[in-house]
Amino acid sequence: MVRKDSHKILDCTIRDGGLVNNWDFSVEFVQNLYRGLSEAGVAYMEIGYKNSAKLLKSEDSGPWRFLNEDFLKEVIPTKTETKLSALVDIGRVDENDILPREESVLDLIRVATYIKDVDKAIELIEKFHSMGYETTLNIMALSHVKENELSEAFAEIAKSPVDVVYVVDSYGSMDHRDVDYMISKFQRMLPDKELGVHMHNNMQLAFSNTLIGAEKGVSYLDSSVYGMGRAAGNCPTELLVSYLKHPKYNLRPVLEIIEKLMIPMREKVEWGYLIPYTVTGILNEHPRTAMALRNSEDKDKYVEFYDRLTSPEIMVK
Amino acid sequence: MVRKDSHKILDCTIRDGGLVNNWDFSVEFVQNLYRGLSEAGVAYMEIGYKNSAKLLKSEDSGPWRFLNEDFLKEVIPTKTETKLSALVDIGRVDENDILPREESVLDLIRVATYIKDVDKAIELIEKFHSMGYETTLNIMALSHVKENELSEAFAEIAKSPVDVVYVVDSYGSMDHRDVDYMISKFQRMLPDKELGVHMHNNMQLAFSNTLIGAEKGVSYLDSSVYGMGRAAGNCPTELLVSYLKHPKYNLRPVLEIIEKLMIPMREKVEWGYLIPYTVTGILNEHPRTAMALRNSEDKDKYVEFYDRLTSPEIMVK
Repeated sequence: MVRKDSHKILDCTIRDGGLVNNWDFSVEFVQNLYRGLSEAGVAYMEIGYKNSAKLLKSEDSGPWRFLNEDFLKEVIPTKTETKLSALVDIGRVDENDILPREESVLDLIRVATYIKDVDKAIELIEKFHSMGYETTLNIMALSHVKENELSEAFAEIAKSPVDVVYVVDSYGSMDHRDVDYMISKFQRMLPDKELGVHMHNNMQLAFSNTLIGAEKGVSYLDSSVYGMGRAAGNCPTELLVSYLKHPKYNLRPVLEIIEKLMIPMREKVEWGYLIPYTVTGILNEHPRTAMALRNSEDKDKYVEFYDRLTSPEIMVK
Repeated sequence: MVRKDSHKILDCTIRDGGLVNNWDFSVEFVQNLYRGLSEAGVAYMEIGYKNSAKLLKSEDSGPWRFLNEDFLKEVIPTKTETKLSALVDIGRVDENDILPREESVLDLIRVATYIKDVDKAIELIEKFHSMGYETTLNIMALSHVKENELSEAFAEIAKSPVDVVYVVDSYGSMDHRDVDYMISKFQRMLPDKELGVHMHNNMQLAFSNTLIGAEKGVSYLDSSVYGMGRAAGNCPTELLVSYLKHPKYNLRPVLEIIEKLMIPMREKVEWGYLIPYTVTGILNEHPRTAMALRNSEDKDKYVEFYDRLTSPEIMVK
């Protein structure tokens, strides 16, 4: 139904999926994914985090957590029309790691931030922008942000050079009305910026919410193949590719990725519609308690988990 | 967000889920489900089909496919506020099997029909209605019905005594706009009937579509616990119970059902978001080809399956 070519799919399988498997993707996996997404008409592939290993405990993470330009040039020697992006976190990125865009494989740098650090995020964005990159600002945990804080942040963001501002449903707690309300607000407060949505699937609403965003004029639609991403995962790329009605989109290569790469991956690590994530989504909470539960022997003790999270005496938040 | 107490959840775990496990639910399973759904605030439990074993190949089906009143009275000796329903198919029900409502455990009989048999469905409904039952008419495969056929059917349905008319997304191919369009049409053509929605989850839209229906004033919302139902399954009961904002709804007993009954069941039989069902949903087709694939050695050969279903030379429909 959404027919205009005004949308860009940004596939974050490697970056967000890395939160599930500690970025343990082989080079071949990433190369095949890039080729498949290119054939599918996906505009951007987020190939990882560009955080600094010096500023984080690395915990034997795979190379997609701390992207290195020399390595990336080996992985992707020839680029297609699909652009490459990387995400950075406030306080975890070393600006000196970033090459000017003309020397980089990356096209887009996205800055993820909590509301309290929006000023730091804007500083980074100004720097990346001056180096020639496309930029986005992703305000995380939007469902916990107070209205007045958001209004103050908007004033700063509007003046910044950032290209795209994201509505991020970190906890998978938004429904279509929440998305509609947020997008309207962002459009009103940031009339000169493009918008993006990054939805989580705790309540099986990631795809539906992304469509609501697309219909309201949001340009950047985040997704991942087979929904791979932290906890309940994301809007599935295969559904977006099949739904958006532009001739460039092609479902077949995405099905090939799922068959060859994602089904074996899903047998090793888990994400998706699992009840503890549904519970944290319903309660509008960070999924960390649910992730801990799924890593324990009690992983299917949903009632005990629910009681713990909803008990007025023993709050775990 | 949907706060009015104008909605009734109808859980069809046993009836629709039976299509997955050949109705192989133990009596204890069904009793625990009934108790849990009652505590959760669910208005109706569909306890099976009331088709006749004489009119169908039974294939060793469990007892919930051919409900027997004496058996049902043993299973549910004491009823709660949660009413019981059964589904019948045109041509598969023996009217002489149906007791008058005051002698029956059942409260509601639902008649499922393809558009061509709506007249037969209405005949049955008139009979059940005169026996004291609440009745619904469920027009299956609505996404394949021609507009003029539907208009003709509406004229007959409007004159019938049926209480509720359902929008059934048999193939899981509808999005929110389709649901919005259909509900508006049903409301315009059948202003004196209550409406229901029965959605399938091929594109992860069953819950979202059900919410769209609820907001537009649809009263009867079909669901099943953990989404158990044929192929991609249904709108999950746990999501509806947590979303609808009336004090009678209680998520905890549904979580208990999932933990104790559904997780072990899902390890034995499969349903839910599996790519072949997504493909038939996208193509607006009956899932039978996808079900056959999942029962074969080629169950994860998605690309081959997609090619087969979309090839202009070798149509499998």
